[in-house]
Amino acid sequence: MAEIKRVLVLYTGGTFGMLKNEKGVLVPQKDIESVIRKLPQLHDDAYWKNNLAGTDKKDYLALPDGKDTDVKILYQIYEYDELKDSSDFTIDDWIKMARDIKRFYHDYDGFVVLHGTDTTAYGGSVLSFMLETVGKTVVLTGAQVPIFQPRSDGNNNLLCAVLIAATQRIPEVTVFFGAKLFRGTRVKKVSNTRIYAFDTPNFPPLLEAKTTLEVDPKMLIHPPGSVPNECRLHDQLSRKVYILKVAPTITPELIRGVCEGMEGVVLETYGNGNIPIKRKEIYKEIERAVKNNVLVVNVTQCINGTVLGKAIYETGLLLVECGVVPAFDMTAEAAWAKLCYVLTKTELSYQQKVELMKTNIRGELENPNSRH
Amino acid sequence: MAEIKRVLVLYTGGTFGMLKNEKGVLVPQKDIESVIRKLPQLHDDAYWKNNLAGTDKKDYLALPDGKDTDVKILYQIYEYDELKDSSDFTIDDWIKMARDIKRFYHDYDGFVVLHGTDTTAYGGSVLSFMLETVGKTVVLTGAQVPIFQPRSDGNNNLLCAVLIAATQRIPEVTVFFGAKLFRGTRVKKVSNTRIYAFDTPNFPPLLEAKTTLEVDPKMLIHPPGSVPNECRLHDQLSRKVYILKVAPTITPELIRGVCEGMEGVVLETYGNGNIPIKRKEIYKEIERAVKNNVLVVNVTQCINGTVLGKAIYETGLLLVECGVVPAFDMTAEAAWAKLCYVLTKTELSYQQKVELMKTNIRGELENPNSRH
Amino acid sequence: MAEIKRVLVLYTGGTFGMLKNEKGVLVPQKDIESVIRKLPQLHDDAYWKNNLAGTDKKDYLALPDGKDTDVKILYQIYEYDELKDSSDFTIDDWIKMARDIKRFYHDYDGFVVLHGTDTTAYGGSVLSFMLETVGKTVVLTGAQVPIFQPRSDGNNNLLCAVLIAATQRIPEVTVFFGAKLFRGTRVKKVSNTRIYAFDTPNFPPLLEAKTTLEVDPKMLIHPPGSVPNECRLHDQLSRKVYILKVAPTITPELIRGVCEGMEGVVLETYGNGNIPIKRKEIYKEIERAVKNNVLVVNVTQCINGTVLGKAIYETGLLLVECGVVPAFDMTAEAAWAKLCYVLTKTELSYQQKVELMKTNIRGELENPNSRH
Amino acid sequence: MAEIKRVLVLYTGGTFGMLKNEKGVLVPQKDIESVIRKLPQLHDDAYWKNNLAGTDKKDYLALPDGKDTDVKILYQIYEYDELKDSSDFTIDDWIKMARDIKRFYHDYDGFVVLHGTDTTAYGGSVLSFMLETVGKTVVLTGAQVPIFQPRSDGNNNLLCAVLIAATQRIPEVTVFFGAKLFRGTRVKKVSNTRIYAFDTPNFPPLLEAKTTLEVDPKMLIHPPGSVPNECRLHDQLSRKVYILKVAPTITPELIRGVCEGMEGVVLETYGNGNIPIKRKEIYKEIERAVKNNVLVVNVTQCINGTVLGKAIYETGLLLVECGVVPAFDMTAEAAWAKLCYVLTKTELSYQQKVELMKTNIRGELENPNSRH
Repeated sequence: MAEIKRVLVLYTGGTFGMLKNEKGVLVPQKDIESVIRKLPQLHDDAYWKNNLAGTDKKDYLALPDGKDTDVKILYQIYEYDELKDSSDFTIDDWIKMARDIKRFYHDYDGFVVLHGTDTTAYGGSVLSFMLETVGKTVVLTGAQVPIFQPRSDGNNNLLCAVLIAATQRIPEVTVFFGAKLFRGTRVKKVSNTRIYAFDTPNFPPLLEAKTTLEVDPKMLIHPPGSVPNECRLHDQLSRKVYILKVAPTITPELIRGVCEGMEGVVLETYGNGNIPIKRKEIYKEIERAVKNNVLVVNVTQCINGTVLGKAIYETGLLLVECGVVPAFDMTAEAAWAKLCYVLTKTELSYQQKVELMKTNIRGELENPNSRH
Repeated sequence: MAEIKRVLVLYTGGTFGMLKNEKGVLVPQKDIESVIRKLPQLHDDAYWKNNLAGTDKKDYLALPDGKDTDVKILYQIYEYDELKDSSDFTIDDWIKMARDIKRFYHDYDGFVVLHGTDTTAYGGSVLSFMLETVGKTVVLTGAQVPIFQPRSDGNNNLLCAVLIAATQRIPEVTVFFGAKLFRGTRVKKVSNTRIYAFDTPNFPPLLEAKTTLEVDPKMLIHPPGSVPNECRLHDQLSRKVYILKVAPTITPELIRGVCEGMEGVVLETYGNGNIPIKRKEIYKEIERAVKNNVLVVNVTQCINGTVLGKAIYETGLLLVECGVVPAFDMTAEAAWAKLCYVLTKTELSYQQKVELMKTNIRGELENPNSRH
Repeated sequence: MAEIKRVLVLYTGGTFGMLKNEKGVLVPQKDIESVIRKLPQLHDDAYWKNNLAGTDKKDYLALPDGKDTDVKILYQIYEYDELKDSSDFTIDDWIKMARDIKRFYHDYDGFVVLHGTDTTAYGGSVLSFMLETVGKTVVLTGAQVPIFQPRSDGNNNLLCAVLIAATQRIPEVTVFFGAKLFRGTRVKKVSNTRIYAFDTPNFPPLLEAKTTLEVDPKMLIHPPGSVPNECRLHDQLSRKVYILKVAPTITPELIRGVCEGMEGVVLETYGNGNIPIKRKEIYKEIERAVKNNVLVVNVTQCINGTVLGKAIYETGLLLVECGVVPAFDMTAEAAWAKLCYVLTKTELSYQQKVELMKTNIRGELENPNSRH
Repeated sequence: MAEIKRVLVLYTGGTFGMLKNEKGVLVPQKDIESVIRKLPQLHDDAYWKNNLAGTDKKDYLALPDGKDTDVKILYQIYEYDELKDSSDFTIDDWIKMARDIKRFYHDYDGFVVLHGTDTTAYGGSVLSFMLETVGKTVVLTGAQVPIFQPRSDGNNNLLCAVLIAATQRIPEVTVFFGAKLFRGTRVKKVSNTRIYAFDTPNFPPLLEAKTTLEVDPKMLIHPPGSVPNECRLHDQLSRKVYILKVAPTITPELIRGVCEGMEGVVLETYGNGNIPIKRKEIYKEIERAVKNNVLVVNVTQCINGTVLGKAIYETGLLLVECGVVPAFDMTAEAAWAKLCYVLTKTELSYQQKVELMKTNIRGELENPNSRH
């Protein structure tokens, strides 16, 4: 008899389960399970009737058998009371998801989060940081076309996400979309029209769903087996973090206005981490923020690239000198999420937080200074 | 005897002509011409001695002969008094460049702007809008590695830019980089480390430098020959425009603070143009700005994609209803530049400015509603 | 009531409908219709029961409604008696398919061919040439993972192919695979493991399935509406055509052996159409073949590129001089198919056949000499 | 004083050094050194005058200083008596190159081969196999546009090749082209018109020339330092090897004709390694060849992909059963080169040769059966 693996699917909302409302715009729908039960790609009803109906596992769905695994995969959909378009997600929503993964950690072999695509890059990062240790695979997924549509990409995304969560040993938070599995701290939503909505511009995918489905262990943060099978959670996040973009018409008032209310600021700079330095009042406001203990992180506006710890251009030198922290090749979303996380580490001094920001802790950056 | 074409190269600064200063960071150098004169790929000194030295054309450089053209190409470098790292460029710098192109329009067959890469996406857009008509080719280019380095990409970029400006009929503002020519209103700096620093994620390149160098006329905004050979310039730009990024921790205070000083705001939203709508105070601040006649344009954070005029998600509906203007597939940089331009069209009403923002005027967007 | 469109699906074999046999290898299965009837993405059984069961349309399947079209799409699967792995396809199989399309041309609004991927590049080309006029859309498709597998790409491929055949006006032979629709004469199978098995290296795709499904009319061979709604068929093909690859160890005996039995030879040469010319015996054998009226076509081994009518290198000059025909940017598969087609045009002289080979007739090549 | 590194450049011919002859076609030119001496990107004449002129190193060229290295790099061009278009290269030419590398192995720190692009994929593979041990970096390079043209890519290719050969520790045969360094056994010429002429479809590049120039040691066959600093050469190669392509019109006569004169045959099959099996006479001829001790290797026609040791389709089963050897993810060029090499290992039995073909010896294949 086949070994059984169980996966928990947190259904939090998103395009995956949306239908048009009376105004002609898409909103999330309840009871997605009943829709999925009718899709033979996603549920083997004959197996369910013979093995699960009438038992304490009657709430489970059963993935149909296929060549990707010899294991029988059962999964359960945990539908959130308030389903949200992910544009509406706040810090609280991700704290809830992280707590739910911890709560159910020992009841399942892997975890899938059905998440709206709009903030998957934020959510993938923030969950990665909160889950300080996670010995099981966590996969975020969703859809560009709702499951109610025949041409939905949701079927295949959910199928692959559940398969991967059940059968691959990837002890980190990941995102499956299109045909690829990405690291959670590296993803960006790169298209709002293509089926391949996500990419990790500074890091290769962890896995591509081809005729076979295999992860290359060398791609993972931790060698398989090296992570204890436990879930350690840091469930606090600062809300006082914002992303400020440098543009040629930026003003000192703007910078001051943004920094005043914040504990952390992601500064989206030009190129290698540059700002206008001939306009000294711009720099002065950033310096003032740092002096006021705002943790300012320097991220490049380039989708591919890195901000190093040593300035290359004169226009980047002042930021280094005044204590702005280089983000290396972190995305803006990952830098934002890491600030939310690090800033609630109350046991750390400001300088220790700075050091933590520069250190690779969830595969989110490569700091060439700390190689070897 | 070969036909002669003349190109003006505005040297404004940028990595192309940088050397390290005493602090070990790169700053622009004066007298780039003397460096270029020593590079046989870029200057045919024998031709110069025989034909130009001692004449009124002694300040010209001569491109060496090659298979790409039978024309003899002479070019002159007009070096700006204050050379800048392009991170330091302000509205005034681009107004100066546009005026210089107009001033010298009838003296040359084409124009090249040596421009720092950090703000090329801003400058390419802003020059495109200011130059309301330009009957000759304008090419921005630069380098990721300075011309002082043996492994500089500046040689090839400048060579191709001058060749294209002299021999191709492309009556628009373009950017040459790596091996491709892009439309000015479509470029983004996509990498700060790769030689291929630019791309136009929502539009194909106009030309690729292969073993031959040919533009496909179908790619151009205007069919060749349809543009009058003149330069019409709008040389004013609003400075009260900023790019505001939606993030999960955005606050109403932040939005109000940014919008208060502005005439135009590029709102970088999630996915198809979405914001958190359950936090009504967020929406209220945007609505307030629109009511105060701030021109708010909705651009997606996705590098590839579009924000349509009709909301797809409930989280985008309120923005449409309150008068926020969809950017369609404009980049944030192009939307910023277009706002700077449109907002100084004092002859237009607010509503006419809104309509202009939604209309394709420099190949910067595709509005599917206005196809046919 | 919705307009109804009808599509004929020729099921000829291929991975799409394969299961493992007793030897553990995949072979095609009969009665694929019964499998498809159970897939709600591909068949709306409720509609069928209410509208088709018990009528003369009971053999039809009904595509479920969705946002891509307001039309109701019915389709019928015409299963071949002998289902084949497409590696086993011969000239006769494609003649049969072409005849079937002609036979049923007026009974349906569009045509899909479920075709094994191994020879889709050959079949897409050969069908394009045989169907001299086709006023309706013909789409070849298939799968990398059989429809019996939960993770099959066949569902989505068939769905998109039927949708496109029913709703888009593309009067040519095309291939849908992965998320893209390609021109039949341009495809190559580029991967045997990835879901995106096909590409057209010398031509852009005709359509990408995104959140919407729209063809760009500028990409088509014929402007929509310019093709008469009829099917004109040339149903003969030469079998005496082969593809001969130049390699450093090629021998004159080999060339002679191959050319002796052939009417047409696709010579896969190096680079821009080059062969070893210092080994004169190599060239002599090719020249001999041409003198014997073998139609020899020069295709490059490079997946992207072109062989021009005028030699660029000395190593290509002799081939031009002795009458070998440049393939321009045709694939080897398209050149092979075109030879099979042209060589049975008995009304043409040898020289007219040569000219036809160099002329773009099905979007298969761009001959820069014949632009304008 | 700077450490000095010395590189030998074997100039064998190719587009790099070509000019048009009286027939208007490109042919290789002698004395390329005098051309290179005039290019300041490639030669620091002031250094040469001060340090090398009048010494025993007067034949060296000196790479100009730059930020990529602190080392002073001198290089010497060894021009072959008969310069060839690489389409004319035969087995003997590559044996000569390999012997020259061995001959001069201890006199230089690294080696560059200026090689025509048309057969670089063959040459890169064949040199890799012949050089059984090579403790220094060997880089093949060339150009798509001759060095005599201003827009030549040869400058940058040669510069990067010499830099890499002098400063990186890559003890294998590689190819630099465009902006990337590839493994020699993995390259294919993928375009005859683009500057980026090469790619390795089944393997990532070893290095990309960005603003910096660094190899990732994890990409190399051997960990740095693990290869003895010696050159072990196997300088024999079989000439009785050919590449036979399966096409729908292939005939048994053709197969027999090709196989009769050969010791090894690369069979370019469909998809996963498939042939028409319903035409039993096709299979019978291949079986006959194997029985006659022809070493037949099964390579897929797909540019990306693999032929496994276990057949997936019925159409591949017979080949496995009769002893045809799977190539895994080797290119046709690498399989050809490896056959040329293995077949002259006279100390090995037929079965040992078969095993060697299936074993990864120069990074040319991944055999998943031998993973651990």
